[in-house]
Amino acid sequence: MVPQESEAKRMTFGEITGIPEGTTFASREDIRRAGLHRHAIAGISGAGASGADAIVLNGGYEDDEDHGDLIIYTGEGGNRAGHQVADQSFTKGNRALGVSSAHGIPVRVIRGYRHASPHAPKHGYRYDGLWRVDDYWSEPGLSGFRVYRYRLVKQGTDAGAVSPPAPPGGNPQPARREVTTSRVVRDTAVTRSIKELYDYQCQVCGTRLVGSSGPYAEGAHIRPLGKPHNGPDVPENVLCLCPNHHALLDLGGFSISDDLSLVGVGGKLTVHPGHVIDVAHLRYHRDHYWQS
Amino acid sequence: MVPQESEAKRMTFGEITGIPEGTTFASREDIRRAGLHRHAIAGISGAGASGADAIVLNGGYEDDEDHGDLIIYTGEGGNRAGHQVADQSFTKGNRALGVSSAHGIPVRVIRGYRHASPHAPKHGYRYDGLWRVDDYWSEPGLSGFRVYRYRLVKQGTDAGAVSPPAPPGGNPQPARREVTTSRVVRDTAVTRSIKELYDYQCQVCGTRLVGSSGPYAEGAHIRPLGKPHNGPDVPENVLCLCPNHHALLDLGGFSISDDLSLVGVGGKLTVHPGHVIDVAHLRYHRDHYWQS
Repeated sequence: MVPQESEAKRMTFGEITGIPEGTTFASREDIRRAGLHRHAIAGISGAGASGADAIVLNGGYEDDEDHGDLIIYTGEGGNRAGHQVADQSFTKGNRALGVSSAHGIPVRVIRGYRHASPHAPKHGYRYDGLWRVDDYWSEPGLSGFRVYRYRLVKQGTDAGAVSPPAPPGGNPQPARREVTTSRVVRDTAVTRSIKELYDYQCQVCGTRLVGSSGPYAEGAHIRPLGKPHNGPDVPENVLCLCPNHHALLDLGGFSISDDLSLVGVGGKLTVHPGHVIDVAHLRYHRDHYWQS
Repeated sequence: MVPQESEAKRMTFGEITGIPEGTTFASREDIRRAGLHRHAIAGISGAGASGADAIVLNGGYEDDEDHGDLIIYTGEGGNRAGHQVADQSFTKGNRALGVSSAHGIPVRVIRGYRHASPHAPKHGYRYDGLWRVDDYWSEPGLSGFRVYRYRLVKQGTDAGAVSPPAPPGGNPQPARREVTTSRVVRDTAVTRSIKELYDYQCQVCGTRLVGSSGPYAEGAHIRPLGKPHNGPDVPENVLCLCPNHHALLDLGGFSISDDLSLVGVGGKLTVHPGHVIDVAHLRYHRDHYWQS
């Protein structure tokens, strides 16, 4: 077996010089030779703790969803002829895509002709640019077996599209879309009211950050907004957290029991008498984000 | 003088029912009557600690910049006939816009015919939708006097454009674009290398967060990327921070001296022997984000 370290050294993250988005290929082998993806069969090109550099969608997994600029990608393993026959584990490529999410590593997406989607090419394979993994979790798939799922957002379609200026001495590398967005904090009238209710104190650790204009906290949706979770934007689904505990909640660093005790860290969630938290959303978080 | 609390109660954040984006008005008084902006002359409609609900751009401030979906807006005060004649202070409307930034409050933007920009209407005033204040700082303006500046990004042009689903019982309110983005964490190859150099430990407090896929930290640009700061994406301008200290750095909760001691909090920045930090960027941060 090749050690992980040397495997990681062969990986190139981001764009491949000379291969623009939209380039088509006849076969997986051609993609491998071009340096876009390191394998000829596996969907995920990744190396454990170093992250994933590319994925292929080609109809291998029944739980994949393709919304154009948003893909819900299924992790690897437990699959036979396109159907899940066993639980997946958070190892190898699955872990690599999780690392890409946490560390903001852009992932190359290649769509193949067998991918059942209007966004797939009719023949062969097409390189469809850089994407960020903005969320990952696990859940029972269509078959009932546990699968890992990754929410990929096309780069350039969100706030990550800031081009850094060229360094004063000139840039020896060709221009690359190298900036990606790894986390976005969203606010609504509901999150603002919950932050005020707690006077910007974190419900986990009590921290209250203060910047030049006053206190700062984040409103965290326990069950996330947007596809495919579609968590509601209501007080019962929102917590007031410091940025550290918000990041940890999103990344599965802790979760919360029905009795509001904290899972994975000590203590208990502080809850205001006027704030009712819906245990269904706590269960959703534990079931999807907590690796027990 | 009307107390701030009752002033805040009269404020409506977000869209005004029945007034779609693009609606035009003949006068400031018509805008006031429509409930879009509470004043007939002042540029900022805001109430100290509660945030600002609306701003008008109408040629009053020489330091305003309009890039279409991105506006660099100048705070109020110290101005005579469109020219700065004194320093501005971080009070009233200026503080209110800072609060809008920290708390993710959407701001209505109205452009007037005297605003010197291709994006201004030829006659009268136009309501140009909801914007988020994604950054604020102070600096010497064109005249040499200190002005507050606010970076406004049009809502819907970034990752904030997630529509929350209607609640199961139906939504008694008409549909509103209510979700805004208050913070975006950006990653590049440079920020990733700095995070690895520190093994994801915060250079301020030593915290190392761990999620389900491994450690998590954020790469913070000392002088921000993008307009109008145009900070370079180089190791000399990047720190490895926990999300709490990243938020505080961005919000002016602390800054860093040339000798790497921390200003506003105790202690000293931890710096790896292989990491050189450019004092010019530290000075830029102190000059723009630190309220001494």
